[in-house]
Amino acid sequence: MLEKTTRINYLYDFYHSLLTEKQQSYMSLYYLDDYSLGEIAEEYDVSRQAVYDNIKRTEAMLEEYEEKLLLLQKFQGRVALLGKIKELINSDPPPKQALLDAVAELEKLD
Amino acid sequence: MLEKTTRINYLYDFYHSLLTEKQQSYMSLYYLDDYSLGEIAEEYDVSRQAVYDNIKRTEAMLEEYEEKLLLLQKFQGRVALLGKIKELINSDPPPKQALLDAVAELEKLD
Repeated sequence: MLEKTTRINYLYDFYHSLLTEKQQSYMSLYYLDDYSLGEIAEEYDVSRQAVYDNIKRTEAMLEEYEEKLLLLQKFQGRVALLGKIKELINSDPPPKQALLDAVAELEKLD
Repeated sequence: MLEKTTRINYLYDFYHSLLTEKQQSYMSLYYLDDYSLGEIAEEYDVSRQAVYDNIKRTEAMLEEYEEKLLLLQKFQGRVALLGKIKELINSDPPPKQALLDAVAELEKLD
């Protein structure tokens, strides 16, 4: 499940500001602070099922935001291109045209 | 009013996928196709006031999304840095450390 957790963490990073305060609290306790559903339920005096449903709904919302805005996908594209650009800068001598091409690709991501 | 129109156009570019279909139609007719409120009202068989209220509410929503996600602000930061990077690449010889610093600044924007 690490892959899914990593993805949700990234999506949470990008979109948490669009969530309600309660959604943010549950997600942050569950995914960042590694609380169990039972511990969150106790903390908020609600049923374990209510916490579970809220978190599942929030995960679905995060995926919907990503479908619409693609912030994670574009971020990953930029990370890859910036890695390539750094390699090119460190070549001797730095190949100008390849660098300019990579920068143009970066611009297209926006 | 050009400045406001330009800003709304940018915000619409970034966030239109979060709007309802009707909001998208009104905004796109008004801001992209330069329809008047009266023409949109006629097209949709609603009052001019209803179109006006919808567009004002949508503009406020776009600004709220920008407050939360800062996509336009980050985009402007990237455009500035990419301009600087292109200048550096075109220097002779390209200054490696300045280029790497600018790339690091780009990375911090994400």
